[in-house]
Amino acid sequence: MNKEINIFKYTLEAKSGNARAGNFSTPHGNIQTPIFMPVGTIATVKAMSPQDLINVQAQIILGNTYHLYLRPGHKLIEKAGGLHNFMNWEKPILTDSGGFQVMSLSGLRKITPEGVKFQSHIDGSYHLFTPEKVMEIQNSIGADIIMSFDECPPHPATKTYVANSLQQTLDWAKRGKDAHKLIEKQALFGIVQGGVFEDLRQESAEKLMEMDFPGYSIGGLAVGESKDDMHRITKFLDPILPANKPRYLMGVGTPMDILNNIANGVDMMDCVMPTRNARKGTVFTRNGRLIIKAARYKEDFSPIDSECSCYTCRNFSRAYVRHLFSVNELLGMRLATIHSLYFYLELVGMARKAIFEDRFDRFRKEMSAKLGEPYFD
Amino acid sequence: MNKEINIFKYTLEAKSGNARAGNFSTPHGNIQTPIFMPVGTIATVKAMSPQDLINVQAQIILGNTYHLYLRPGHKLIEKAGGLHNFMNWEKPILTDSGGFQVMSLSGLRKITPEGVKFQSHIDGSYHLFTPEKVMEIQNSIGADIIMSFDECPPHPATKTYVANSLQQTLDWAKRGKDAHKLIEKQALFGIVQGGVFEDLRQESAEKLMEMDFPGYSIGGLAVGESKDDMHRITKFLDPILPANKPRYLMGVGTPMDILNNIANGVDMMDCVMPTRNARKGTVFTRNGRLIIKAARYKEDFSPIDSECSCYTCRNFSRAYVRHLFSVNELLGMRLATIHSLYFYLELVGMARKAIFEDRFDRFRKEMSAKLGEPYFD
Repeated sequence: MNKEINIFKYTLEAKSGNARAGNFSTPHGNIQTPIFMPVGTIATVKAMSPQDLINVQAQIILGNTYHLYLRPGHKLIEKAGGLHNFMNWEKPILTDSGGFQVMSLSGLRKITPEGVKFQSHIDGSYHLFTPEKVMEIQNSIGADIIMSFDECPPHPATKTYVANSLQQTLDWAKRGKDAHKLIEKQALFGIVQGGVFEDLRQESAEKLMEMDFPGYSIGGLAVGESKDDMHRITKFLDPILPANKPRYLMGVGTPMDILNNIANGVDMMDCVMPTRNARKGTVFTRNGRLIIKAARYKEDFSPIDSECSCYTCRNFSRAYVRHLFSVNELLGMRLATIHSLYFYLELVGMARKAIFEDRFDRFRKEMSAKLGEPYFD
Repeated sequence: MNKEINIFKYTLEAKSGNARAGNFSTPHGNIQTPIFMPVGTIATVKAMSPQDLINVQAQIILGNTYHLYLRPGHKLIEKAGGLHNFMNWEKPILTDSGGFQVMSLSGLRKITPEGVKFQSHIDGSYHLFTPEKVMEIQNSIGADIIMSFDECPPHPATKTYVANSLQQTLDWAKRGKDAHKLIEKQALFGIVQGGVFEDLRQESAEKLMEMDFPGYSIGGLAVGESKDDMHRITKFLDPILPANKPRYLMGVGTPMDILNNIANGVDMMDCVMPTRNARKGTVFTRNGRLIIKAARYKEDFSPIDSECSCYTCRNFSRAYVRHLFSVNELLGMRLATIHSLYFYLELVGMARKAIFEDRFDRFRKEMSAKLGEPYFD
């Protein structure tokens, strides 16, 4: 028995239907699931300080390998003692593989079996991401949870394209796993691909499970397919993926997307939606979206959400936040972001409680009505 | 004896040379002088939350009457319960008269004995500021300390122009004082004008003192005159202004400007310099200015100022703050602002301590050497 045995251990604590409440241990502390992960693209969650993130009860944040590689560069982050030190965030961090970003650079990238050659969106310089290079970068960044390099096919894509892409991604997963040395410090997740095709999703999951990763990501969703397709795929994967490992659904979503996917056994999700919308003047509340920058709130001295306990709602009115947006003051973006992240994290906290009390489905139906967003069977 | 007797009372607590340490009581608490006041133009100190301001030990902040009048409007602020409530700032606030701003709208404004007609810099709409109107606006905003409407002559200006302007401003001061009704809630300061001409400054101060204001502002400096002229005028006014009232020097300045004017008996100052520079990537430290966005700090993992105890210096490196500026992340502006305001407020705190210990002149000389800014006799 040694210390490492308890690192990267997922404990299933309760189930309600197929929804799971669990605990995942990392070198920077435990993550209580289901959890939403705020996106901190380039070593900062936009408009937030680390203290703000603690105050909204963030447990883990995400960093983008592609962006961090370009600026400030993984070698600089390594010199700073890793991303935790560099940005002064002491809790867990997850980095993505860069795959999604480089695939999005259409016209600027070329995929070969070796990897992906691409041009920087900043200065047009040429770079090559291979499974080994992406592992080296993520080792330097030092997140607690890291991702295999993958191809994320666009939607729509033919089944032949997705099938070929999948074989490539499986080969890259194997190469990444072989290249990953810091297995006691960083949990490498394999990414299940396969688009909207159940047989391909099954093949992807089973081949990755043969390689035995400490966790599994579900990639290639929230890329333009219907919500029916998204929920069909996560529901399909639920019984296939191992019960004793965490499942991370990448890039999802709206408040009800989160609850609907928790219902399909998903443990972790991330999305820029709450933060990006907040900076543009739209916040999420338990009664749906609210365009806080709208003129109709000019003289509304009530808080954004009278049931909310975030710093913004405890201290400021809709009229004040609206004023800040109307005069382009930075504090507006921050107060809106604080509110929306607090709401997302409160939402997954309420989901977790409902799972422990075995009333998750009822909770999800109630929230669907309140939020005005669909419930998926 | 009633409660009001202790409101707006200035107590001179110590002197060191002509530098004064005192206490000024307001309905929102005491101000320990000498003090620097961060500028919160339109109901927010740019990049800062009220909690951030408490953390940098701000005692009083400034709001701009002209900007607040245009957006969100003084009537809306009144409906919100005043500016303190609207922006959630519980400590004292000072508003300026709008005079400086409307005078700066050259081409867009016309001065008559009645007041100043001007066009909004936002939408070109026409407005008229009179001494009475400015008092009505400031009564609605509800700051603890408010200003008489004044004409702030440009520099250079002929003595004849300044003399005529001065008579106008004295008449406006009288009209404003007559129009100000909330004397138990808001202290109206008279503004000493007179440019760089000592006889005009003397006349201005004496005529205002005859009207008996609870405090006196020194306006029309830091508008382009030499530092010699600025210090000559504040030094000249020191023995003229009453010892038992606070003196506020408007719009000043660099760290040494602040210490040099404290040496001339000034109690309060405000300036956008620390906040505006911070947002552009230059911070103030006890060793002078530091262009934190500069490439030379790319791999500098020391704090901005190793002797500083602000949130930024306790938690983040120069390399991190520099990175935030290089990728245009909002947190960079906030961390830089936090540092520079903390430094300014620490500086006046050190000055106050040096006055109590009767070593202010030595302290000022030491700081002049460290800061690399001139000391004025």
